[in-house]
Amino acid sequence: MRDRLSPEARAAALENLPGWSLVEGREAITKSYKFKSFSEAFGFMARVALEAEKLDHHPEWFNVYNRVEVVLATHSAQGLTELDVKLAGKMDLIAKL
Amino acid sequence: MRDRLSPEARAAALENLPGWSLVEGREAITKSYKFKSFSEAFGFMARVALEAEKLDHHPEWFNVYNRVEVVLATHSAQGLTELDVKLAGKMDLIAKL
Repeated sequence: MRDRLSPEARAAALENLPGWSLVEGREAITKSYKFKSFSEAFGFMARVALEAEKLDHHPEWFNVYNRVEVVLATHSAQGLTELDVKLAGKMDLIAKL
Repeated sequence: MRDRLSPEARAAALENLPGWSLVEGREAITKSYKFKSFSEAFGFMARVALEAEKLDHHPEWFNVYNRVEVVLATHSAQGLTELDVKLAGKMDLIAKL
């Protein structure tokens, strides 16, 4: 889970994560979510926070009103791992709730 | 509450908000909070979110693990207002809980 993904595995993972893209100049992935209100945006963040804590893997994220910008990377691996792919998938599921 | 503060009122407010400073190149105030863990940091954010929703005044904030960086400004006033001072004070109180 915490091993750095090969470029091939990374590309394959990104294909299954719509809206996610690689961060320029850094091995990390990013997505911007937009909700109807602050309440919805923070509800999303609260649910993601519980998942992140369970995975012991946490996002870098910025919120202003109804917008949440997320960056995922695994610091210990200095790049992307299966953990990032897993958390990204959970975020997409939670955003649809 | 939503009127732009005079430079004098802004300076006086900042004196009573330790750790807060003006953002370079923008009429806004900022503070970086550090907690023991993600759980503590997100607990702080959750409590602040409830206050922000009550005030109908929301922060811009960034979180990574145990760190929360906040920027406050009142978009409708294009600057700082009493609402920002109030929310900043609440955040400092919540951070101490």
